[in-house]
Amino acid sequence: MSAEDLLFARIDYYRQRHVSYLEQKLQQHAPAERLRAAMAYAVLLGGKRVRPFLVYATGEMLGVEEAVLDAPAAAIECIHAYSLVHDDLPAMDNDTLRRGKNTCHIEFDEATAILAGDALQSLAFELLAAPQQTISANQQVAMLSTLAKASGLHGMCGGQALDISATGKTITTTELEQIHQLKTGTLLRAAVQLGALSSNQVDNRTLTLLDQFAEAIGLAFQVKDDILDVTGTTKTLGKTQGADAALEKATYPALLGLAGSNDLLQRLQEKALHALSLIPYNTSLLEQFTEYLVTRDR
Amino acid sequence: MSAEDLLFARIDYYRQRHVSYLEQKLQQHAPAERLRAAMAYAVLLGGKRVRPFLVYATGEMLGVEEAVLDAPAAAIECIHAYSLVHDDLPAMDNDTLRRGKNTCHIEFDEATAILAGDALQSLAFELLAAPQQTISANQQVAMLSTLAKASGLHGMCGGQALDISATGKTITTTELEQIHQLKTGTLLRAAVQLGALSSNQVDNRTLTLLDQFAEAIGLAFQVKDDILDVTGTTKTLGKTQGADAALEKATYPALLGLAGSNDLLQRLQEKALHALSLIPYNTSLLEQFTEYLVTRDR
Repeated sequence: MSAEDLLFARIDYYRQRHVSYLEQKLQQHAPAERLRAAMAYAVLLGGKRVRPFLVYATGEMLGVEEAVLDAPAAAIECIHAYSLVHDDLPAMDNDTLRRGKNTCHIEFDEATAILAGDALQSLAFELLAAPQQTISANQQVAMLSTLAKASGLHGMCGGQALDISATGKTITTTELEQIHQLKTGTLLRAAVQLGALSSNQVDNRTLTLLDQFAEAIGLAFQVKDDILDVTGTTKTLGKTQGADAALEKATYPALLGLAGSNDLLQRLQEKALHALSLIPYNTSLLEQFTEYLVTRDR
Repeated sequence: MSAEDLLFARIDYYRQRHVSYLEQKLQQHAPAERLRAAMAYAVLLGGKRVRPFLVYATGEMLGVEEAVLDAPAAAIECIHAYSLVHDDLPAMDNDTLRRGKNTCHIEFDEATAILAGDALQSLAFELLAAPQQTISANQQVAMLSTLAKASGLHGMCGGQALDISATGKTITTTELEQIHQLKTGTLLRAAVQLGALSSNQVDNRTLTLLDQFAEAIGLAFQVKDDILDVTGTTKTLGKTQGADAALEKATYPALLGLAGSNDLLQRLQEKALHALSLIPYNTSLLEQFTEYLVTRDR
């Protein structure tokens, strides 16, 4: 197997792990059956599963057992999935297609989609606060605090609000970077932090370097998404090609051109790899993942 | 001062405490200024503040310092406020008036209201997970778990989903009770539990009795709301009188009649007071509050 095949096998393994874990949590009977079904639909649908991967890969690099990482990996995917459900609503991006399938409010209805998003957010914190045998309550509180901050006004929700208010307006590269750092970056950084906080012996310097790595790939991820929105096809992307441009959303290609965006992408990749090179653990999986992030075609 | 005046003074004092606490949290500058303003609008607006009151009253009865109770009181009000913002949305109850003022999506816009609700939920967990000096991480995790469970699929969101699916249908008193136990009851019970869990010396019997008390007043609260929707006026209620009937929502007066609903209310009051009478602490404030809940005219 090539290094890339091994990476994909690992990504797939982690995907199966946290999806099984979530299926188990969401298959128990609930009085509100339709809501349960909508939550499962939204969170169990395909997707790249970047955030759970980062939790597992970071945690395992630091010697944390896989079973300990299931809850944080599932929790962060619940937050990501809920944000997609709400972003797709008619009052927001009004998207009908996501990962090649109906968005949640099309498959169910708008009220159910709003509630499914809400309940997925609650589930994220419920999973992180569930009794744990191998990590301390102090670690749990730190993880809960990290995820809550990354999700709210000063994180993902704030970024989405700025993104909406920037639609149809001319903004600077600095403003676009702030939007993405809040909207996508904080949650990717939280994924790496949750993995790191699962370990009770990680040193502060490693935490800082991991955060620099996460910040760089978070932005790289978004720059690449913007490039793919221009160069990809609807079939490959599983979402409407050119959707951002149609919504008059600010993108990197619109601000920097395609060549400028690719230059930025390369600088971010170098920054991420530099941070990893200073970490005294086996960072090869995170290096391969960085390579994949910037070369992917979907 | 009469006992009732003293109760109102206490409610008002607790209201001021947790509102100041929330104002402080929400007055810091945020990049997404409009979102911050919408969150503050939604959570700082008037209201009965029943949930924060229950946190403070329960905690203080058990000897917990007020300063320790600010975070859980504010957290549960954030969850309640977010649920109102989302319930009022056009895809849900489509309400334009709340507490005598514009609902959040009317005052701002729909996308901002969705995000404000989302970010208020994150804020609730952020407040509960913030560093605490006087309570242990174990207590914090227990409180976070309690609030997350009460908010999600098996709690408030589940109840709201059942409520929507029951609209326009004939349901039994048992089904109506389940809707209310989930939609309103779980969060009121969580308020009492958060107050109790703030104490590190409460015994299990008291916890059980407090939960019986909370369950009874939770249902009483809803029965009284349903009665007021029939007998109150729009001006007194601060929301549209007859709104539930207009939406063809199942209510206690519709199922049991007004007299039957008042009988049920009285039985629930007796149940709540009986549970309190067995608790070996000074329960007078909670008794007065029960009296107020069932006799209020708004």
